[in-house]
This record gives sequence, structure tokens and C-alpha cells, in this order.
Amino acid sequence: VGTRLTDAGPFAHLWGTDEVRAVLDDDGRLRAWLTILSALADAQAEIGIVPREAADAIAAITPDRLDHELIAAETRRTSHSTLGLIKAMQRALPDEAAEYVYYGITVQDLTDTWVALVIRDVGGVVWRDLRAIEESLLVLAVAHRSTVMPGRTHGQPGAPITFGMKVASWVDEIRRHLERLAEGRSRWLVGQLGGAVGTLGFFGQEGPRLRRLFCERLGLADPGIAWLTSRDRIAEFGLVLAMISSTLARIGGEVYELQRSEIGELREPSDPDTVGSITMPHKRNPERSEHLDTLSRLVRANAGVLLEAMVQAHERDGRGWKTEWVALPEVCLLTSTALRLGVEIVAGLEVDVDAMRRNVDAGDGYLASERVLAQLSGELGKHTAQALLQETLAAGRDGRRSLIDALAASGAMDADSAAALVADPAIVTAESAVDVTVERCRAARAKEPDRWT
Amino acid sequence: VGTRLTDAGPFAHLWGTDEVRAVLDDDGRLRAWLTILSALADAQAEIGIVPREAADAIAAITPDRLDHELIAAETRRTSHSTLGLIKAMQRALPDEAAEYVYYGITVQDLTDTWVALVIRDVGGVVWRDLRAIEESLLVLAVAHRSTVMPGRTHGQPGAPITFGMKVASWVDEIRRHLERLAEGRSRWLVGQLGGAVGTLGFFGQEGPRLRRLFCERLGLADPGIAWLTSRDRIAEFGLVLAMISSTLARIGGEVYELQRSEIGELREPSDPDTVGSITMPHKRNPERSEHLDTLSRLVRANAGVLLEAMVQAHERDGRGWKTEWVALPEVCLLTSTALRLGVEIVAGLEVDVDAMRRNVDAGDGYLASERVLAQLSGELGKHTAQALLQETLAAGRDGRRSLIDALAASGAMDADSAAALVADPAIVTAESAVDVTVERCRAARAKEPDRWT
Amino acid sequence: VGTRLTDAGPFAHLWGTDEVRAVLDDDGRLRAWLTILSALADAQAEIGIVPREAADAIAAITPDRLDHELIAAETRRTSHSTLGLIKAMQRALPDEAAEYVYYGITVQDLTDTWVALVIRDVGGVVWRDLRAIEESLLVLAVAHRSTVMPGRTHGQPGAPITFGMKVASWVDEIRRHLERLAEGRSRWLVGQLGGAVGTLGFFGQEGPRLRRLFCERLGLADPGIAWLTSRDRIAEFGLVLAMISSTLARIGGEVYELQRSEIGELREPSDPDTVGSITMPHKRNPERSEHLDTLSRLVRANAGVLLEAMVQAHERDGRGWKTEWVALPEVCLLTSTALRLGVEIVAGLEVDVDAMRRNVDAGDGYLASERVLAQLSGELGKHTAQALLQETLAAGRDGRRSLIDALAASGAMDADSAAALVADPAIVTAESAVDVTVERCRAARAKEPDRWT
Amino acid sequence: VGTRLTDAGPFAHLWGTDEVRAVLDDDGRLRAWLTILSALADAQAEIGIVPREAADAIAAITPDRLDHELIAAETRRTSHSTLGLIKAMQRALPDEAAEYVYYGITVQDLTDTWVALVIRDVGGVVWRDLRAIEESLLVLAVAHRSTVMPGRTHGQPGAPITFGMKVASWVDEIRRHLERLAEGRSRWLVGQLGGAVGTLGFFGQEGPRLRRLFCERLGLADPGIAWLTSRDRIAEFGLVLAMISSTLARIGGEVYELQRSEIGELREPSDPDTVGSITMPHKRNPERSEHLDTLSRLVRANAGVLLEAMVQAHERDGRGWKTEWVALPEVCLLTSTALRLGVEIVAGLEVDVDAMRRNVDAGDGYLASERVLAQLSGELGKHTAQALLQETLAAGRDGRRSLIDALAASGAMDADSAAALVADPAIVTAESAVDVTVERCRAARAKEPDRWT
Repeated sequence: VGTRLTDAGPFAHLWGTDEVRAVLDDDGRLRAWLTILSALADAQAEIGIVPREAADAIAAITPDRLDHELIAAETRRTSHSTLGLIKAMQRALPDEAAEYVYYGITVQDLTDTWVALVIRDVGGVVWRDLRAIEESLLVLAVAHRSTVMPGRTHGQPGAPITFGMKVASWVDEIRRHLERLAEGRSRWLVGQLGGAVGTLGFFGQEGPRLRRLFCERLGLADPGIAWLTSRDRIAEFGLVLAMISSTLARIGGEVYELQRSEIGELREPSDPDTVGSITMPHKRNPERSEHLDTLSRLVRANAGVLLEAMVQAHERDGRGWKTEWVALPEVCLLTSTALRLGVEIVAGLEVDVDAMRRNVDAGDGYLASERVLAQLSGELGKHTAQALLQETLAAGRDGRRSLIDALAASGAMDADSAAALVADPAIVTAESAVDVTVERCRAARAKEPDRWT
Repeated sequence: VGTRLTDAGPFAHLWGTDEVRAVLDDDGRLRAWLTILSALADAQAEIGIVPREAADAIAAITPDRLDHELIAAETRRTSHSTLGLIKAMQRALPDEAAEYVYYGITVQDLTDTWVALVIRDVGGVVWRDLRAIEESLLVLAVAHRSTVMPGRTHGQPGAPITFGMKVASWVDEIRRHLERLAEGRSRWLVGQLGGAVGTLGFFGQEGPRLRRLFCERLGLADPGIAWLTSRDRIAEFGLVLAMISSTLARIGGEVYELQRSEIGELREPSDPDTVGSITMPHKRNPERSEHLDTLSRLVRANAGVLLEAMVQAHERDGRGWKTEWVALPEVCLLTSTALRLGVEIVAGLEVDVDAMRRNVDAGDGYLASERVLAQLSGELGKHTAQALLQETLAAGRDGRRSLIDALAASGAMDADSAAALVADPAIVTAESAVDVTVERCRAARAKEPDRWT
Repeated sequence: VGTRLTDAGPFAHLWGTDEVRAVLDDDGRLRAWLTILSALADAQAEIGIVPREAADAIAAITPDRLDHELIAAETRRTSHSTLGLIKAMQRALPDEAAEYVYYGITVQDLTDTWVALVIRDVGGVVWRDLRAIEESLLVLAVAHRSTVMPGRTHGQPGAPITFGMKVASWVDEIRRHLERLAEGRSRWLVGQLGGAVGTLGFFGQEGPRLRRLFCERLGLADPGIAWLTSRDRIAEFGLVLAMISSTLARIGGEVYELQRSEIGELREPSDPDTVGSITMPHKRNPERSEHLDTLSRLVRANAGVLLEAMVQAHERDGRGWKTEWVALPEVCLLTSTALRLGVEIVAGLEVDVDAMRRNVDAGDGYLASERVLAQLSGELGKHTAQALLQETLAAGRDGRRSLIDALAASGAMDADSAAALVADPAIVTAESAVDVTVERCRAARAKEPDRWT
Repeated sequence: VGTRLTDAGPFAHLWGTDEVRAVLDDDGRLRAWLTILSALADAQAEIGIVPREAADAIAAITPDRLDHELIAAETRRTSHSTLGLIKAMQRALPDEAAEYVYYGITVQDLTDTWVALVIRDVGGVVWRDLRAIEESLLVLAVAHRSTVMPGRTHGQPGAPITFGMKVASWVDEIRRHLERLAEGRSRWLVGQLGGAVGTLGFFGQEGPRLRRLFCERLGLADPGIAWLTSRDRIAEFGLVLAMISSTLARIGGEVYELQRSEIGELREPSDPDTVGSITMPHKRNPERSEHLDTLSRLVRANAGVLLEAMVQAHERDGRGWKTEWVALPEVCLLTSTALRLGVEIVAGLEVDVDAMRRNVDAGDGYLASERVLAQLSGELGKHTAQALLQETLAAGRDGRRSLIDALAASGAMDADSAAALVADPAIVTAESAVDVTVERCRAARAKEPDRWT
């Protein structure tokens, strides 16, 4: 049983997806570690460092053949991270192979190489889900290219925008994350083989060749040099995921606010079984959107730990390194959950076009103030017009008059001209933003693979 | 099976103690929740809100009588944090009691009250372990009141100190944490009963009385007002634990550095079964000390999340609140582990008095430069002496001459006078610091309870 | 000219108050440093370490008598933090006193003691402003003890609360901060005198007495032991300020959201000269409230740096210590600004009681769902009633019927009974919360001083 | 006078370089803003939105023609970030041009475009200094390709490495930062022109064209869509700088530790005028190296603020945006200082090859344990050999015998064989790592420009 509520039965789904859990949990980790140790033995057999038969025997070990209790007990007894595993593997091997498992390498060779495999697997999920979100958003942006709604600045209604433009701004950001993933991949997917201090001293002359063969077998790049205390790769991957989570929190926050009953422009999809509140049975809460914010905070905190972990000393430094054991999986699990929620939200987002229109109209014309200013600027000069309007519109709002009435009453503009400006949301640039963004994303999608690796 | 490596079989002991896990894990949480719901029903029975028989039936439920699969399944299905539990409890109750479980309250009433119980339990562990560390340190400080060793500033040997003074500085800090725990207790150990929005509207006139009776039964204070979005209590507790973890990391860091082979003044206790390295069989690593730094980073990051969670909106705000579900247990588990390591390290710390002496002597007399400066200041004036020594000692060090030779050669001081200063470590204030600190701690200990609550 | 925009002419007022700037700026710092050095010389004269005349001459130095260019130039040339100051002071002193300035101490003795004085001054501002905010909030809570408005959970309207209860929740939190300030004071207001490595080796036997006399002259407590690398005091003060800033951000966030045009329940005070937007002349933005959030983020980040700085090595460690030079002033300046804004906002907060009422009514009765549930729970059992209402009210909302109609149509409750529940906001506990909180704060205020020190 | 010590006379050089200050200070900012407003007017004149003469007049304004007091006073009076500037510019313009300055745009159009220019300028400095550091390190790596020194893991001496390999690991990391800068550039160097809410409503049909022309004039890319609340660009730049600072802190930390008197392998360059300590005149502190750690902590904290600022609401959100005003300059100033220190340290680093050798020898042969293990693994099997050596070497160390004696005494290996292993540092892979890394960096350098833009 997990201690962390993040792993506990009833709540675990909020803090990790099954898919990424399968990469990171005891079983997934063990499988990957066996794969790595098998690749090592295979490379060593090719060079002649271990017998071919030993390598084959090692390759044949599966998690179910290991004594998991022994692994845990020996790990605790020896305070050594992998000696328990080694002993369990030795027991599962024929005598003539038992000495050749985990031959000449150090813990970080295993765990860091595993990190690269984790990044490969999790990065693939992130890539796929980000692209799914992008696809939904592209469709949404096009559909609402000209759907007028209030723009809002500092929490207050401003000039109209289109919902399509808002969505395009999201997708524009997501596309940059896809770029970052594409660019970072070659830095992240590298193996680690350094031995005790990075010199592979155990292997003498064969060190560089062994590392190359080892990495090849795992589909990872050969780093050319040990990175035992050079951790920017991990920090960078964590930070990219933190940026992605933050973008999702931005989208979630928008939905959360625009779903307020008093606004009612958006509504996240909800499941009929969902119970919003057991004390207030009428509630429909933007739970998924809200959770995106929760997740992003935790991801950022953990990514910060990864960043701090870059400052390491000498040839191995457990202080920062061991924080990665906790923080990197956390970043992966939480971000994957955020992505799953993001996929669901954008795919099922309910857009209330009428409410958007209503909210523009509820502005009593004041949302046209930018246009009125533009108009009067031509006549009076911009800053003169601004000062005049500043006063006129304040008086109008205080007197609860509409913009049209306020302008007409002040003599600043006749009612017909004002009405014409109020009627025109001036969304040409918004529509252009949709067009440009959609085209850019479509072009990028056409040229890139569906799968990250 | 846990996903997080922090909960996984072989490594879980590095990231939580069994004792605090028992408070926080599925089982511990469920037990505590049942206790809370029983206290609620009991208080409600006293007022006449629910039948006494129902309250008794609720009090009789134990975790083993609940269908844990149902809890998880219904939690997921309804997206409601406690509806699964409610359904399972209803099944475990006779029909006439089933409607009276979890009567009229909201999730946070349960989870926040649980947080207070967690703080009570974990705070008790922290108090106990901090005091155990204090006791060991007091003994150590007294034992080494006059043990001379190099002081070090900016990583470079400076004037001599005593090891007792170094230890006294640790214990002085720990004593302040005990003060903080004592002061914060009354702010932290309060129940939560607010209902939907903090008004206990479900209970009409009986709200305040019900809350009082509920809190009484749990040994918690009545807050007088709901704190559904007022989260400074949790943030403060988390931050105090983060400060404690940081102090432990400071102590650990000191041991880690002074255990360097090149220095060799301290050595953390080690278990004979411990294997430092499987590639370098001669290694003895300061693993526990090192891990204190690792833990403190993670605690700080999570405490930062709790601090951020203070900024909440309206009457319930899942964005910050739900981060507490993850960050508070994390802070508790990691700090408890750090305390356990701290207890072990200070209880078994090996102090190499000879190495300390050797390292002072290895300074070739230069560690007496503060004393030499004081002496010459009386003759030449302080700043004149400083400028003179600045030059003389630089030349001496560059020429690999001892301080005594350098002074004598320059004519600044005769060799005998210099030798007398080198021989006197000038540790009166250091010894006084030990005395004052030990006395202060002893006096505080005499007046305070062994147990936090 | 300042480089940081936080110090630059047009924007500096957003990031610091004149009052706290005067404590922290070049001039304030220099004045305080001279005071400290004068207290040192005076204490040294009493013991006979320096001549009384020298102490008097040192006491007579004022900032205008120092060559500020020389200070800066020598600081840079020597890479020593205070050697520039020493040289400038020596020049300003008669020859017979020049050697006795800054006699035998180290940089941290000066800067850490200064930190204690800064905490004293800034703490006093914080105490005063927090209490002013408390006073305004107490008045507001009483005035709106029974002012009904929608409670909101997860951003959605829920059962009614009173605005007084909301305010009481703020003031309850602020009162706890005042407690924290009162409790922490004795830990924070202590001098530092350690010399090179904390042993005051320069002063031989006189160390402890000199430290006592020095601290006395400055009105600070004698720590009994150097705290050169024991930094929990500073971290704690910073964290308390970060908690305070976060509470202010919570209040600001509430105003920001409730000032949305679509909600309109609160409005922060605004100055007639304020220009909300030069492109949208109708805008009235909640600028001050918004800025509280901005400030709190920066304060939290800097307080986190102070927390991290607790992990220091040996007897002096510039790595963490020097971060305090930046982060502590930042925390002080930003928090003081937040407090000033807080004072203004709560003193001039406009409460639109009609809008609150309107927003309750706009809920079409659904805000009474907790009361309806309570009523039906008595008849059907709580969970049965909840399930029934869950369905009924969903159908009602989808059909855009009022709660009363929905209940009546479904047969769950007759219209008159439902109407009676809708009419009763059930705010007894809310009113009680106001009473309890106000009484508690008033009682605390009556017993405590107006000034922090 | 600056308030922040980071800007104050004597200490400012520790927290910013003159070069980057010139970009960011009042004067630099004002110059850049005038450039931007001139580019805007010019683009508007081309389209016919403003008269050509007005654009020319605006282009002719220089900072000295503006009333800086007026700017500050009006900024404060109106609470508007740029209205003070507008008024001052209007005063400096002929009447017929005065209305055309800052025509139709919003604050963020100015400040965000400025951010892009800041990133361009600061990014150029970072690029140049990183490459200078890389160059020094490449030379150092080659020079010390085979210089043997102790590897150290967990703070304890392990198998030998070469100093060249250590340096290669640094340069490898720096090269990746250069890649990141090259890749990010196109995302960062984009203009902003959105008007009130991103639709450029003021300009009707002309919006997209105006934005394009505006960006062209400044040498920035046209984003195609407003990014008023899409802040990943800024966060990413800040995070890359935080990673760079962390790498520099890693290098600094290595120098700091290896400069310990007890180790003495490295020494940072020092200036003869530097005074390490005024109480201990013999001190030579690794001040620059130490400061790299200090700076990196502050940079990380501020970069974290930028990351958090990605979560913004609607079309403008001062809460996160305004934190960028503080955090981005801070990140730039501190990182530039770190880079300057880094350039100095690596250019003048003193390497004590003899001390390195001595420290290897001081290991009494135990640093060869990886080699011994390899040798015995061939004979006994790896894990059997490890267990044997674990015991033998522990006994040897406890008995203060050399590795050779311990092995010989135990019969595990004869003295001659052991001596041969001790004599061979097994650095083939280390040398290869130097070769590979240097070649990779040299190849990259040959293909890239000296200047970033």
C-alpha cells in the first residue's frame, strides 16, 4: 500500500495516469532495469568481457523470477541502492553467469540510463497528448474564428475579441512546447556509462567502445563523456514539462473563470456521474480545470528541485542526484495527468456563444471604447481624445448611462456614430491571428512525426 | 504497489519512517477519518441531530469492515473525494443508521480536521526526535567544550574554535525550533467544521455548538470560525518543518565536509553491513549526512507549495487546497526521515580529536593570525597592523614559511612572542558559548513536557 | 541611478515604501552602521579596549563626513565589504582615534547586527500596518455581520454567507500573524559579535562581556553564542513576512474577483486621477488588489532563498549569507508596499450590498440547496435526499427552472416550503463567527502595545 | 540613490555588470523605449496612420529632451505606467506631432517589445561570455587531458580521473547551453503589438500590417498573434539563464572545494589588492567561486517567478506580468555577473598538478580499488571479489595499512600485482572523453557566429 495519497487507492488517479505509472512503478522500473542490464551484458559479450552464455542468461531474467522481498531486504541492510537487486539476480542465474551480472558498473549507470528511457517514454506521451490538444484547439479556433466575446484585462471587460483568437493564443503556446520537445530530444536521450568516477576504470581500454555498444543496444545516443554530475539534461526536461503544465493551468484557469455562473461563457465537459458537492446538490464545479492549476504548482516546485540539482560536486554527489529520484517521476506523473485532463477539457469544451454575445452587450457599449477613442483621435488628437473620454465615460458609468448616451449627452459624438462603433467589434486582427496561427501549426504538423521517437 | 519510488519497496525507507507512514498511509488515514466521523456523530447525537443508536453504530465501524474496492471505485466514478467512503460506510451500517453517517458536512471538514490530527501526531514525533537530538548534542558540546579544531570561513581554515562551540551552535538552533513548535501548537491543533461554505447552514442554529462539541471530542480547539480558505496554519507548520530540515541539513553538511579524507575530523556512524560502493570497495561514504541535504531540498520545495497555497479564493478553492494533500504529507514524511537520521548521526558521531589538533597544527601557525593581529594592534594600531600583516603573511605563505618564521623574518614580532600566540587558541568565548547554550537548553528542558501533546 | 526598475524613478513606489526605503537605502544603512560601530567603540571604551576619546570621536562621525566615493572605490578595489568604509572613517577621525574604529570585529558582526536593527524597524512597520488593517477589518466585519452574499466554492455560487464572515476570516488570519510577530521578536532582536570565527579571539577573555555591553547599547539581546552560520532567525522573519504578504494577496484576490463587472460586489478605492487604460478609457481596474498578488509572489520567492540560506557550512559561508543581502531587503520592501496597499484597500473598500443581494437572488433559489438538503434529510435520510436532489436540481437547472419550481415539479417539496428555505439564508453560524473573531481580536488588542518595540 | 544594496554604490558590482546595467537602467530603458516608439510612428507613417512629419519629430526625441521629474510624477499621479512618459514626450514635441506619439497602443506593446530587445542584448552578452568560457575550458581540458587527480564521490576520494576530464564535463554542459540559446532565439526575438486586448482594434483593418512593419523596423520577428498573456518565451529565457547560472555555480563549487587548504588542487585567480579578511590577515578566500553559488540561488528563485508567471488570465493579467518587471532584469543582471566571474575564474585558474598527484598518493593505494576489483573479478567473479575486497580493504584501512599491504597480507593479491594496479590510473576513457568533447565543441564553434545576433 502506498503511503502517499498520490499513490493511494481512491485518489491515485488524480496524481498520475496508468500509462505513466506503468513506466515508473516498481514493476516498470524493474523491467527497464533488467533491459538495461541485459543490454550491458550483451555489449560486454560482444567485446568479450563476459561470456556470451552469461549475457544470454541475464537477458532471460524476468521480474517474476526475482525475489522481491530479498531485493528490498538487502537494499535496506546494505544501504546500497542496487545490491539487493544484484543478489536477487544472482540467485536467478545459473552459477556460471551469476558473477557477470551488473559487471563493473555503478548505480548511476543503471539509474541514469533508466532516466533516459523514462524521458523517452514519458516524452512520447507528452508529445502525443500535446498534439491531441493542439488538434482539438485548431478545430476550436477555426470554428470560433469570429465568435465575439469580451476581452478582459485586469479582470475587467475590455474591447471585444473572438474566442477563436483566445484559443489560437493557447495553441500558439502549445506549438512552441512541441518545438522544445523536438529540439531537446537529442540532448536527453543519451545513455550513461561511467563506472565509479566516470572513467570506466574497470574496463581499461575498452571503456569508450563498451559505452558506445551499450547505448546502441538501447537506442540511446552515446554521450562521449560521463554526465554523472552534469545534470542539465534532466533539469531541462523537467522545466519543459513545468512550462507545459503551466500552459495547461493557464487554459484551465481561463475555463475556470469563464465558467463562473456570473459569466457562463465556457463550461468544461462533465460526466453525468460526477457529484459536485454532497452538501450543495446543485453544484457543477470546473473540477478538471481547477485541478490543472493544482498540478502545475506541484510540477513547478519539483522542476525547481531538478534545477537546483544541477549544482553538484566532484564525480558523484548524492545530495542533488537523489532529489531527482523523487522530483523527476513526480514531474512526469503530474504532467501526464494534466495532459490527460487537458485532452478531455479541450475535446469536450462547451462554448456558449450566446452568453459571450450577452456579455458583450451587457457592457452597455463601453467595450467599444477603444474604437471610439480611435475615431475621436482622428478628430481631436489621440491624447486629447483620451483625456476627454476618460472623463466622459467615467461620468457615464457613474450615471449608469450607456456609452452611446454618455457620448451623445456630452456632445463628444452623435448617437448614430457611436452606435455604429458599438456594433462593430473590430476583429480583423483577431481573425488574422487565428488564420496565421492555424496555418503555422498545420504546416508544422504536416512535417513532423506522430510519435516522438 | 506504489508508483512513487518514495513508496516503493526497496527505497521507501529513505523517504519516510514507518511511524509517520502509519499516520499517513491508506490505513492510518482511514482510521483517523473514521474517528473523526464518529466524533461528529457523537456530537450530533448529544445535540439530538442524529439518533444515539446511529452514532454508536458509526463508532463501531472499523477499516476492515469497509469495502476498499468500492471506496476507490466510487471515488473515481463520482469524482467526489469522499462519496466512495460514504457509500462503503453506509453498506457497513444497519439501515437505520446509514443515513446518519457523514451528516451534513463537507469534504474539508473531514480532511482539514484530519490535518490537525496529522499535525498533532507528526508534531509529537518531531518534538520527541528534536529533543533527542538536543540531548545528544548537549552531551557532545560539554564533552568537547575545549576541544580545539580549525574554524573555517569561506571553506578556508581560520582561527581555532572548539568543537563544543560548533555543536552548541547546532543545539542553539534546535532549541529555537522547539520554541517554535511550542508556540505554534495552539494555532495548529484546531478542528474544522464549516459545511458547504463555512456557515454550517445545514445545521441552522446549532452550528456553533456542534462545532464546539465536535472539536472537544477530538481534543482539538474550536476555531470559532471556519478556515476553509484560511490556510496559514498549514503553511506555518510546513515552514517550521522546513526550517528544521534545513538545520539538520546544516549539521549533515558539516559532517559530510569534515568527514572528507583530507580533513578527517568527524565521521558519521556506519553500520558494518553498509556497502559504500560496489565498484570501489574501499569507500566509506557519509550517506546519512548526505541524505539530510537531499531531504531538506525536497521539504523546502513542498513547504513552498504550502506557502503558495495560502492565496485562496472565496469559500473553497481546490487549486491551492489540493496541493496540500500532496505537499503536507511529503513534508511530514521527509522531515521525519531526516529526524531519524539526525538522531542516529548525533548519537553515534565519531570525533577525531587528534585530527582536529593535527589540522590546527597543519596551519603552520597561520590560524593564530587573529591573535597576532590583536597583539600588534595594541602596538601599531589595528588597521596599520592589519595592513602590515596582510603583506607579511602573504609573503610568508608564498614562501612556505611558518607564521612564526614569517613574523620573525619581517621583524614584526619576535619568534617567542609569536610562538606564544600560536600556542594559545584563545577559546574563552567559545567555552562560554557552550556554557551559556547548554544552561539555556537544560533550563528549557526542565520546564517542558517530554511529549508535545 | 538605480538599475533595478524596483528602484527606478517612475516605478519605485510600486516596490517599496519611502519609510522602509529610508531604513534600507545607502543612507539608512550607513547611518545604522555608524550607530553600531559607535556602540561597539563605546562598549570597548567601557572595558578599556579602546580609549574613551576614540569612542567619542567615532560616535561623532555622521554620514556627511564620509567620502562616499572612497567607500565605493576601496570596496571594489579590495573586494572587502567594509574596508572602504573603514578607510573613509579613518580619514574622518583624528589620528589618535583612527586605529580604534571597527576594532577587532568582522563584517558579519556589523551586517548581522544591522539585520537585527532592520528587523526591529521593519517589524515595527509591519506590526503597525497589520494592526491598522485589523482595525479596519473589525469595523467592516461588524458592519456587515449580517450582509448576505453568495458563498462561492470552486468559483461557483454556493450557499449564502455574510460579508462580515468573509472579513472575519481575513482578520482571524491577520491576528495570527500578529501573534507570530509577538512571539518571534525575542528570537530576532539579537546582536551579533563573533569576530573571525565566532570566538572573539581578538578580545581574549573579554569576549563575552564585550558582546553583552555591545548588545545592551543597541537595545538588542545578547545571543550568548555567535550565529554566523545559524540563520534560522532571518529565515523565520522572512517567512512570516511571506505569510503576511500571502494573506494580503488572498484579500486582494478576493477584491479583484468580486470587482469583476459581472459580479460587482466589491470595489477597491480609486483615486480620481487614476487612469485605468489609455486605450480603453472606460476601464477601472483593481490595480492595488492585483498588485498584492504580484508582490506576494516575489516575497515568497525571496523568502524561499532565505530558507535555503539556513544550510551553511563551518564558521562563515558566503554562499548563503550573501543571498540574504539581497533577499531580506527585498522581502522587507515588497511586504511593506503590500501592507500600505492593504491599509488603503481595506480602509476604502466599497461594498455593494445590493449587488450581493442581487447575486444571491440571481441563483434562482439554488443557493438554498444546502438548506433544502437539510430539510429533506430529516424526511428521507441525508444520502437518499442528496441523491434525489442531485438529479432533481440538475434537471431543474438544465430546464432553466428555479429551485422552487424544480422541487415542486418533482414532488420533492411543495413550493411554499421551498420558498421559505430560499428566503432564509441560515447565517447564524456566520454571525457567530463574526462575534467570536471580533471579540478575540479586540481582547488581544487591548492587551498589546501599539508599537512593536 | 538606489535602495537595493544590489544597486547601491559600494556593492552594486557584485550584482550586475556595467554592460547589462546599461541595457536595463533608467537611461537604457528610456532609450530603448524611445527607439520602439519611433519605430511605431515610422511604421504608422508608412501606412498613413500618422503624418510623416510627426514620425520624424518622434524619432528625433532623445532622453535628455525629456523632463524626467515629470515622467515620475505623472506616473505616480495617474497610476499609469507610461502616461508620465507620454506627457513628457508630448511636451518635447511640436504641437502638430504631440498627438501622434504612442498612438493607439498599450503599455505591454512597449514593455514586451522592450523585453525582446533586452533578451537580444543580454542574450548576446551571454552568448559571448559562454563562448569565452568554453574557449578557456577547451584549452584547459587539452592541457590537462592526462593530469591525474583523485576522483571524488560523496565527498570521498575514489578512483583517479584526469583534471582534463573534469573540465571537459564542464565544457560539455556549457556547449549544451549554447545550443539552447541558438534554438530559443527565434522564439524570443519577437515584437509585441496587440493594443488593448490583442486585436489592435484601434487600427481596424490595418492591424496585422502595422504589426509586421513595426517588428521589421526593430529587427524582431512578427509573432502573428498577440502574446499579452502567453509568457512562455520569457519564462524559457529566464530558465535557460538559470541553468547557465547553475552550471557556473557547479564550476565555482568545484573550485571552492578543491581550493580548501587541506586539498589545494585548484586556486581561483586573485587580485593582489584583494583583502580576504580583516580579522585574519592570512586568509585567501575563493570569493569569486563562492559568489557563483550565491548568484545562482537568486537567479533560480527569480526564474521560478517567471515560470509561475506563465499562468495568466484573459487578455492582460498584471498579477504575473508585473512580476516579470522585477524578475527578468534580476535574472539578466545576476547571470551576467556570474558569467563575468566565470570568465575570470576559468581564464586564470591555477592548477596544482603536484597537489593532485600528492592527493592520489595520499590514498595509500586505495584509489586503485576499482582496478583491483576488475583484476580479481576475472579470477574470482565480480561479486565474490567485491565481497572479499569489501572486507579486506575495510580491515586494511582500519589497521592503517596501505592497499598493497592489505591485499598482500590477506593473500588476495601479491604485492607486485597490486603495486602495478596502483601505478596505473586507468584513464583511457577519461582521455577519450576529453578528445570527444573538445572535438565536438570545436566543430560547433567553427560553424556558428561569434555574435548571437
